[in-house]
Amino acid sequence: MIVEMRRGATTDEVDSVVQKVKSLGLDVQLNFGTEKTVVAILGSNTGQLSTDIFAVLPGVESVSRIMKPYKLASREVKTDDTLISINGIEIGGKRIIVMAGPCAIEGEEQLREAAKVVKDAGASILRGGAFKPRSSPFSFQGLEKVGLELLVKIKEELNIPVITEVVDSHDVHMVAEVADILQVGSRNMQNYTLLTAVGRSKCPVLLKRGFSCTVAEWLTAADYLLAEGNNQVILCERGIRTFENSIRFSLDISAIPVIKQSSHLPVIVDPSHAAGHYSLVPAISKAAVAAGVDGLLIEVHPNPKDALVDGLQSLTPSNFAQLMGELRPIAKSVGRYI
Amino acid sequence: MIVEMRRGATTDEVDSVVQKVKSLGLDVQLNFGTEKTVVAILGSNTGQLSTDIFAVLPGVESVSRIMKPYKLASREVKTDDTLISINGIEIGGKRIIVMAGPCAIEGEEQLREAAKVVKDAGASILRGGAFKPRSSPFSFQGLEKVGLELLVKIKEELNIPVITEVVDSHDVHMVAEVADILQVGSRNMQNYTLLTAVGRSKCPVLLKRGFSCTVAEWLTAADYLLAEGNNQVILCERGIRTFENSIRFSLDISAIPVIKQSSHLPVIVDPSHAAGHYSLVPAISKAAVAAGVDGLLIEVHPNPKDALVDGLQSLTPSNFAQLMGELRPIAKSVGRYI
Amino acid sequence: MIVEMRRGATTDEVDSVVQKVKSLGLDVQLNFGTEKTVVAILGSNTGQLSTDIFAVLPGVESVSRIMKPYKLASREVKTDDTLISINGIEIGGKRIIVMAGPCAIEGEEQLREAAKVVKDAGASILRGGAFKPRSSPFSFQGLEKVGLELLVKIKEELNIPVITEVVDSHDVHMVAEVADILQVGSRNMQNYTLLTAVGRSKCPVLLKRGFSCTVAEWLTAADYLLAEGNNQVILCERGIRTFENSIRFSLDISAIPVIKQSSHLPVIVDPSHAAGHYSLVPAISKAAVAAGVDGLLIEVHPNPKDALVDGLQSLTPSNFAQLMGELRPIAKSVGRYI
Amino acid sequence: MIVEMRRGATTDEVDSVVQKVKSLGLDVQLNFGTEKTVVAILGSNTGQLSTDIFAVLPGVESVSRIMKPYKLASREVKTDDTLISINGIEIGGKRIIVMAGPCAIEGEEQLREAAKVVKDAGASILRGGAFKPRSSPFSFQGLEKVGLELLVKIKEELNIPVITEVVDSHDVHMVAEVADILQVGSRNMQNYTLLTAVGRSKCPVLLKRGFSCTVAEWLTAADYLLAEGNNQVILCERGIRTFENSIRFSLDISAIPVIKQSSHLPVIVDPSHAAGHYSLVPAISKAAVAAGVDGLLIEVHPNPKDALVDGLQSLTPSNFAQLMGELRPIAKSVGRYI
Repeated sequence: MIVEMRRGATTDEVDSVVQKVKSLGLDVQLNFGTEKTVVAILGSNTGQLSTDIFAVLPGVESVSRIMKPYKLASREVKTDDTLISINGIEIGGKRIIVMAGPCAIEGEEQLREAAKVVKDAGASILRGGAFKPRSSPFSFQGLEKVGLELLVKIKEELNIPVITEVVDSHDVHMVAEVADILQVGSRNMQNYTLLTAVGRSKCPVLLKRGFSCTVAEWLTAADYLLAEGNNQVILCERGIRTFENSIRFSLDISAIPVIKQSSHLPVIVDPSHAAGHYSLVPAISKAAVAAGVDGLLIEVHPNPKDALVDGLQSLTPSNFAQLMGELRPIAKSVGRYI
Repeated sequence: MIVEMRRGATTDEVDSVVQKVKSLGLDVQLNFGTEKTVVAILGSNTGQLSTDIFAVLPGVESVSRIMKPYKLASREVKTDDTLISINGIEIGGKRIIVMAGPCAIEGEEQLREAAKVVKDAGASILRGGAFKPRSSPFSFQGLEKVGLELLVKIKEELNIPVITEVVDSHDVHMVAEVADILQVGSRNMQNYTLLTAVGRSKCPVLLKRGFSCTVAEWLTAADYLLAEGNNQVILCERGIRTFENSIRFSLDISAIPVIKQSSHLPVIVDPSHAAGHYSLVPAISKAAVAAGVDGLLIEVHPNPKDALVDGLQSLTPSNFAQLMGELRPIAKSVGRYI
Repeated sequence: MIVEMRRGATTDEVDSVVQKVKSLGLDVQLNFGTEKTVVAILGSNTGQLSTDIFAVLPGVESVSRIMKPYKLASREVKTDDTLISINGIEIGGKRIIVMAGPCAIEGEEQLREAAKVVKDAGASILRGGAFKPRSSPFSFQGLEKVGLELLVKIKEELNIPVITEVVDSHDVHMVAEVADILQVGSRNMQNYTLLTAVGRSKCPVLLKRGFSCTVAEWLTAADYLLAEGNNQVILCERGIRTFENSIRFSLDISAIPVIKQSSHLPVIVDPSHAAGHYSLVPAISKAAVAAGVDGLLIEVHPNPKDALVDGLQSLTPSNFAQLMGELRPIAKSVGRYI
Repeated sequence: MIVEMRRGATTDEVDSVVQKVKSLGLDVQLNFGTEKTVVAILGSNTGQLSTDIFAVLPGVESVSRIMKPYKLASREVKTDDTLISINGIEIGGKRIIVMAGPCAIEGEEQLREAAKVVKDAGASILRGGAFKPRSSPFSFQGLEKVGLELLVKIKEELNIPVITEVVDSHDVHMVAEVADILQVGSRNMQNYTLLTAVGRSKCPVLLKRGFSCTVAEWLTAADYLLAEGNNQVILCERGIRTFENSIRFSLDISAIPVIKQSSHLPVIVDPSHAAGHYSLVPAISKAAVAAGVDGLLIEVHPNPKDALVDGLQSLTPSNFAQLMGELRPIAKSVGRYI
C-alpha cells in the first residue's frame, strides 16, 4: 500500500502515518521526493487492509492499494487451475462444458422435453430455475418446491446433473439436496448472508458476476465461498451494465483472459442473459469459446413463444443444436473440445 | 405497449400478435404505416406485462413499454405525498430530517458519544450499523446482536429513534424490535427474499438505491415492500456507479426531482457513501437540500481516525455541527426547515 | 414515432399534437386506451425527426422513436453487404483483413522494420500514425508531415497499402494523397467538421467508435460520411468506457452481431486500444474473429520497450506472428480465412 | 510514480526499471517487501510521463501514477482562484453569473426577444448558437455566418456580452471577433486541433466537459488551452453518460467540489443539456448553486414549442424569470449573489 502525503506535509504528519503502520505490525519505507513524501507499507496482508485507515490521517493526499483485495481466489495463492468434478464431468479442464435448459421450470412436460433436447445436442448439465428472483412482485416467481421435485424426477429419469438457483440462505440445504451445482444469481453476488451459507454447504457453486461489479469485487465475493471451505467455485460472466442499449447487458469478453491471469477458478459465460435476444446468443457464445472460456450456460426452451420467463433470449431446440454444431470446430481450433 | 413489426411482416405475423394480445384480455389497435405496421396494446396493466411475450413472435422488430414497470410506488396510483411518522417526527413534510451517526457500532462509549453530538447538532434520528455487509470476508462484520443491544440502551438513554440495517430475511423480526426504521442496503435492493420479509414486518423502511439500478428499477423494488402492505417506505439515493473516479459513487442529483415527479414516496440522500471522502460531504449535502430532498443520512464518528469502518467518509462532531449550521439557511431558501 | 399523452390529457391537447403532425406532412393514427391516449406518427422519415417537437407540447408524457435515427448506414436502405476494395484487397468479404503496425511512426528504421514483420506474418495493410491526438499537450504529438513522407517511402518500398489518422479537416486532402484508408479516431467520431471533409474526399475511411457512443450514434456518424457520397466506410470497434478497471476499455463484443444485423458496412476490431495491455490482445482478437468480424487493427512494434506511444499494448514481432498462426484455424472454423 | 514488480521478479528485472528511471533524469527509491519489490520514481514531472514506459518492462506487475496528469490547470501550480472579466462582469468571484438564451439562433426576432427576456430576468451574458454540431447530417445545422451577424446586431443593440460555439479550428478567428466567450462543446473536448487554435486566440473560452470524460481528463484538456497562453478558461459541467435513463445525461454534482479542490479555474453548470427536459432544470440549477458553482448556462426560448433545436429542454421566459427569483435566496444562503 502506497500513502502519498500532501505537498508541505509536516514531519509530524509523516510520523503519525509511520506510527499507524507500525501499530499494525507492518513494515514501512519512506520515499522523500522533491515535492512530496511517499510512504510504502510492506507486508503480505495489506490487500485486506482498508485504505481509509491511512487516508483519514492529516497530511495524507491519497492511498493506493498494491496488493489485490481478494486472496483465496487469486492465482498468487494457488497457481494451478482448479478442476471441479460433477458426476465425472470435469469443469476447468480441456473440455468446454455446456449447461442448458429453460430459464424457469414451468411444468413436467416442458422440463422433460427441454432436458431431452439439450442432452441430445451435447449439453452435459441441465439448467432450470425453481426459485426465480424477479424485478417486479407481480411477475411469475417460479414453481419453488414443486420445481425442485420436478428437477429430481427429470434428473434421475434422464441421468443428467442439474444446476439451479438458490435465493434464500435458509433454503441452501434443501436446494443442495437436489442440485449438483448451486447457482448464485447476479443480484445476489454481494448478498453475503447467502454466500456464507452456500460456502458452508460444500456443494459446487456457480457464482454469477454482479452486473455492475468489477472483476476484483467478483473475486472478493468468491473469497466468501472459499473462506468457508467450499473450493468448488465456478465463476460465470453474464454481462455488465453499460450505456449501450442495443443489448440488455454488455458481455465483458476481456473478463475471461483477466480471470485466467488473476485466478485459478474456472470461468464460464452465460450469453443468454447478456444478450436478452436469441439472435445475439450464437455470436457471443462463439466469441466466448475462442476467448478461452471453460463452459457456457445457455437458455433453451422447447417453445420460446410460450415461455413464462425470458422467452426472447431462449434458443429453440433446433437453433441450439445448430449452435452446438458450430461451436465444436471453434473449440477444436483453440485446442479444446465440447 | 407498442409492438413494431418488421418491414415486410406478413398479415399472418400481424395476426398472431393480435391473437396473443386478445388471449391476455387486452385491447389492440393497428396502425398501418407506409413502411411498417405498428400494434398498440391497450390496458391498465401492461406495465407489469413482459415485453418478451410479444418480442419473441415472428415478424416483430421491437416492443416498447409505455406504462411504467412499477405501480404501487407511482404517483399515478397515489397522487398525494406519503408522510411517515417516526415517534412524532414526520418524514416527507416541510421539515428536512437528518439521520446521523457512525457507520458501524463499535462499542458503548463510541455510540453514546456519537449519539450525543448528532442530537446536540440537530439530527433527529441516530444511525448505527450492527450488521455490516462487507465486500471482503476478512473485514470487520459488525457487532451483530451486541450492537443491537447497545442501540436499545442508547436509544432509551438519549430518547432518540434509531435506524439500523437488516441483511438477513430471518433477522427482520429481531431487528425490527429495536429499529424505528429498518435499512435495506444498496447491495440488497434486489434481494427479493429480504424485501418480502421487510415488507411483511410493517416497520418503516429505508430502501437504498442499488448502485447500478435505474430509478425505475428502484421504484419497482419499492413495489415489493408496498405489495406486502408496508406503506412506510423511504427511498435513499446514495450514489451510482459511473466511469468517474474522483468520487466513490456519483450522486445522482436528478434522481430527486425525477422521484418527486414519479412517486409519492419521500426521498433522502446519503452523501457519505457517495462521497467516500469527508471533504465532499458538505457540498453534496447542500446540493441535495436545494434540489428538494426530504432528509439526509450522514456518517458522523467521534474520532474518524480510529473508526473500524469508513472512517474517511465520516464527519467529525465539529464538522457535522458546522454543516448543520450551513444547511439551515439553504433549507429556508427553498421553503423548508431542518 | 409514438406520442404517449398524459392521463387526463384534454381533447385540445391531443388535437394540437395531431395538428403538429399534419403540418409536417405526416400521417397520424389515434389509439384511445382505457387510461391514456397514444398517437402514432407514420411516415418513412420519422427517424430523422426530433422527438422534442412533440414532447414539448402540453399534455404529452413521452415520445418514443420507432424508426432508427440513422438511415444511409442501415441495412433497410441497402440490404447487401458493402465490399471495399483497397488495391485489390477486399474488406467485408470472406477474407478477414489484418491491419498492423506501430501506433506512432517514430522514424524510418522503426517503420520499415515494423512493416516487414507485419507483412511477413500475413498482415495486408500497414498502420502507422503521423498525427497523434494525445490527451496531454506535453506528450509526443507525432512526426506529422515527416511521418507522412516516411509512410509514402515504406509503402512504395514494400508495396503495402497504408492506413493513417487524420485529425484536422484542412489536412484531409494532404493525408488522403498518402493514405489508402483514412482513419477517424474515437475522440473525433462526433467531430462533424472533420467527418464532412472526410466524406467529401471519397477516400476509403475507417470510422472508430466513440468510446462512449452507442451503436446507433456510431451509425448516425457514418451517415455523415455516406451523405457526402463516400460509400467506402469501414466501422471499427475499439472498446467502450465502463466501470470495469481491469482493462482500459471494455471491448463491446456484441457490437459485431448488432452491426451485422443493422448495417451493410464492414466492421473490424482494434483489440490493442481496448486492451491497453499486450497480454489481453490475443484473447480479444480470437473472440472478435469467432464473433464474425471483417478485420483486425493490431499494434505491433519492433521493440515495444522503446515505443514513444502505447508500448504496453503493442505486440512484439514474434508475438504477432504467433497470434496470426492462432487466428487462422479460428477463421477457418467460422468459414473465413486470413 | 510507483512501479510494483511481480512476485519473484529477478534482480536484473528490477535493475532494468532503475536504469530506465535514471535515463530519464529522475530519482528512484527501492522498497523490498516480504513478497514484492516496489520502485518509487521521484521527480516533479512524473505526472506528464506515460506509465507505459515502465509497465512494458519485464517483471513489472503494475504502475500507479501519484502525480496528476494535468499541470497548468491544477491548484498546485496556481493556488488562488482565477477570475475572468468579461466587459466588467467577473466570473469566478462572489457573484454567480447566469448565461442564458436559445440553443440555436433561428432569426433576428427570436434572438432579440430571447435576449430581452433573459436580460430583464437578470442574466448577464446571452448565449446563442450559430454553428450547431448535430448528431445527424439531416438535422438543422445552424445559421452559421448569418447567425454570427445577428449576434453582433443584438449584442450591440442590447449591450449584452455573448457566448457562442466554435466547431472548426479555422473559424476561431472569425467567431472570436463576435464572441465575448468562445464555447467548446462536449463532443469537441478532446478535439486537440480545435483546442490549440482556441488557446492561441486568447479569447475567453468555456470548455464543456466531454460527456464521458473524467474530471482529470477534462483538466488535462484545459491544459491544452493554458499551454498556448490562454488563461481565461471557464469549465462547464453538462452531465455525464451513465446507465440511468430518466434523464438525458446525469449531472455530476460532485464535480463542483472536486474541481474547487483540484483546480483554480471557475466552473459553471449547464443544467439544460444534462436534463434534456425543462421540468428538471430548476432542481438541478438550485443544486448547482448550493454546491458552489460560479455560474449557470441555461437555455431559454421565447417559444419552446417552435424551437428548431432542443425545445424540450428550453425554459419559457416566465419559467426562467421564476427560476431566477428562486435562485437568488439560495445564492445568498451560501454567501453568494446573482
